[in-house]
Amino acid sequence: MNRQTDRGSGDTGRLEAFSDGVFAIATTLLILEVEVPHVEHGESLWSALGEQWPSYAAYVVSFLVIGIIWVNHHQVFGHVIRVDRKLMFLNLLLLMIVAALPWPTALLAEYLRGDAAAAHTAAAVYSLTMVAMSFAFQALWWHLTRSGHLFHPRVDPEGARGTRVRFALGSLGYPATVALAFVSAPLTLAAHGVLALYYGFNQVQVPARQDPEAPRGTRDLA
Amino acid sequence: MNRQTDRGSGDTGRLEAFSDGVFAIATTLLILEVEVPHVEHGESLWSALGEQWPSYAAYVVSFLVIGIIWVNHHQVFGHVIRVDRKLMFLNLLLLMIVAALPWPTALLAEYLRGDAAAAHTAAAVYSLTMVAMSFAFQALWWHLTRSGHLFHPRVDPEGARGTRVRFALGSLGYPATVALAFVSAPLTLAAHGVLALYYGFNQVQVPARQDPEAPRGTRDLA
Amino acid sequence: MNRQTDRGSGDTGRLEAFSDGVFAIATTLLILEVEVPHVEHGESLWSALGEQWPSYAAYVVSFLVIGIIWVNHHQVFGHVIRVDRKLMFLNLLLLMIVAALPWPTALLAEYLRGDAAAAHTAAAVYSLTMVAMSFAFQALWWHLTRSGHLFHPRVDPEGARGTRVRFALGSLGYPATVALAFVSAPLTLAAHGVLALYYGFNQVQVPARQDPEAPRGTRDLA
Amino acid sequence: MNRQTDRGSGDTGRLEAFSDGVFAIATTLLILEVEVPHVEHGESLWSALGEQWPSYAAYVVSFLVIGIIWVNHHQVFGHVIRVDRKLMFLNLLLLMIVAALPWPTALLAEYLRGDAAAAHTAAAVYSLTMVAMSFAFQALWWHLTRSGHLFHPRVDPEGARGTRVRFALGSLGYPATVALAFVSAPLTLAAHGVLALYYGFNQVQVPARQDPEAPRGTRDLA
Repeated sequence: MNRQTDRGSGDTGRLEAFSDGVFAIATTLLILEVEVPHVEHGESLWSALGEQWPSYAAYVVSFLVIGIIWVNHHQVFGHVIRVDRKLMFLNLLLLMIVAALPWPTALLAEYLRGDAAAAHTAAAVYSLTMVAMSFAFQALWWHLTRSGHLFHPRVDPEGARGTRVRFALGSLGYPATVALAFVSAPLTLAAHGVLALYYGFNQVQVPARQDPEAPRGTRDLA
Repeated sequence: MNRQTDRGSGDTGRLEAFSDGVFAIATTLLILEVEVPHVEHGESLWSALGEQWPSYAAYVVSFLVIGIIWVNHHQVFGHVIRVDRKLMFLNLLLLMIVAALPWPTALLAEYLRGDAAAAHTAAAVYSLTMVAMSFAFQALWWHLTRSGHLFHPRVDPEGARGTRVRFALGSLGYPATVALAFVSAPLTLAAHGVLALYYGFNQVQVPARQDPEAPRGTRDLA
Repeated sequence: MNRQTDRGSGDTGRLEAFSDGVFAIATTLLILEVEVPHVEHGESLWSALGEQWPSYAAYVVSFLVIGIIWVNHHQVFGHVIRVDRKLMFLNLLLLMIVAALPWPTALLAEYLRGDAAAAHTAAAVYSLTMVAMSFAFQALWWHLTRSGHLFHPRVDPEGARGTRVRFALGSLGYPATVALAFVSAPLTLAAHGVLALYYGFNQVQVPARQDPEAPRGTRDLA
Repeated sequence: MNRQTDRGSGDTGRLEAFSDGVFAIATTLLILEVEVPHVEHGESLWSALGEQWPSYAAYVVSFLVIGIIWVNHHQVFGHVIRVDRKLMFLNLLLLMIVAALPWPTALLAEYLRGDAAAAHTAAAVYSLTMVAMSFAFQALWWHLTRSGHLFHPRVDPEGARGTRVRFALGSLGYPATVALAFVSAPLTLAAHGVLALYYGFNQVQVPARQDPEAPRGTRDLA
């Protein structure tokens, strides 16, 4: 007879707090991959530091990648007011991949300058992780736009659904980097830096309902 | 003569924030267990990566486990409005076990493919940690339902007490995995993945008071 | 001519959020100290795990210590509504010691079963860190009670000042553990566990103003 | 036809939460740089601990540096109510440098007592990181004061612009430490400690509009 109080709704506050925590920790753990070089007496520390450039490059690119995903995550969840189980699982899946990023980052930094086969492998693993992340994000967006009722009322569900194809097309860059991995590992890393900047400037757009008479309210919610 | 201002009540906000922090960090530290394999010139990095599959499997299962405990923790504390000392200690105990999970995860990943005795030992330690976690969560729920006054007024204390046996029965899966550990370590890990998904879909249910005339308020609080 | 807007006041929200972050991360990093033992084929993993008991004991005690400091920190800042520079620096000092705790914890775990001299040294360093933490907490409390104006109006500043001596006497347990370190390292660790529990049950008490006609408001603020 | 809801505005809440997370984690990871010394039976642990003084000094200075940047970040964002893309990127850049600090800290601790050339190199890298951090903070402030419209209405944009030169002059201490690095590594570390304390006592000042008739409102916002 008792109605369950925990169905059909839910707040996004703690989900966002938990997600923010994972994003912040994953970015900060990236630095553990950059080692303190060991030089013997008389050897140059400058050149030992210089030889570590793949570590610095991988740190910067992965930091940008996680930072930009966080921005887009933030952007999307700013329009979500209800959490259902599927959304919760898809978000956990996304976080599981984000939290794993320090590992392919360390792998790529380690093998970027190694022999060609290992470098290509490491770059492919890095790219595949990004493909998985992109898929998880798209699955999350697909679920949100299909159900629609998880959005804030200001969101136009039809318009949101309409963004899915464009969003999917925009994500084709990630599979392409898997192919690129077998051409050049450094170019692959550079491509991921460019993709991160691209997504930084082309964030997920959540269309608002047309409501010309209440421009202020809509703007406040943006 | 002065009344103490710090008894008999307390807010759940910072307790939840601290707990969220521990959950988020424990999940994110899991990746440190996955190593960058070392291959000599000419060896295949792909096969070295492939041999590490226990690390990936342990990462995924432990991430799911912590993620789902977090969801259930979130669920329970959404109905709590007061914190007493015992609740605070039981919560600290739960967090102490959650924060320790990266260690049995690394242990199981290390010995999953080792000789049988070591694999069984590592799997048993992993399972025992989960038993301890399950006990801590149940002790917390037992305390909440026994005292009752820590809940939000919308919660039906009688109904909540009634969930305890079902909840305890549902947790019998964990002791069973300790026995399973001495049969097969990989199966034990798989069983924990299945249990996590089970608890993801069968979360702690907090029964609401029957109040047919105020459906909206109740729903808002869910 | 411009008045500076950033003097004489300040919110405690972000200070508490930053502090909570440091407390949560410091507790969670403790597990990195517990190693995965290395056993050769045929050796018993159980006995290798058993030999590591100082690591588990040190983990539990340090987790309790940080957890209880967090509770007391939370308790005190629940009555603070303004932050001045000195409070900010004293809080940073406290956090600097809390964030350092994983190190003496690892040190004590490493040398607890070593030769006597090293064990005593490690225990003394552990105890000295706790003395430093206790001093930082007392300096913070001393500053709050002396200035008085940083408290919420419900706090009785006279009564708060009156707690200082009792609070200082209660902290004499920490210097005593430094002496105990030269007697027995395991006893020292146990003593810190007992002290943590003691402070868990005897938290900092913030006296309220006497105001018999508004009991509800005062209780709400507790 | 649909207006995009995600342009021209944005809330600072999650940006601050993410930043706080990165600050808190970066400070707490610093302790991982301090090693547990290895002593053989009969060797003195005290003297082994004493030889590690550069690690403790580097920990304290870097903790102070990050703590003080956090305070100033907090101070500035307390007056910001809108986030545009450029601000978001400049903030990510600042966080990328803050999150990297455990690495130059470990580098300096490792080589501070090494041969002169390595010590100077490590100190120079540490100082250059601080220069980069100072530049990122100034770029962020420059952007805020130039655009002006991201500030809370209480902020005097003219006055804020006027602080830029003084702020830039105050940051000349960082490039000077790069030169100092080639004189003495320990002095360089000490100089960074002094600079951190200086910025702790001379925080970024955000000038308020002159509004003598509403002193209370302005004070509340400080």
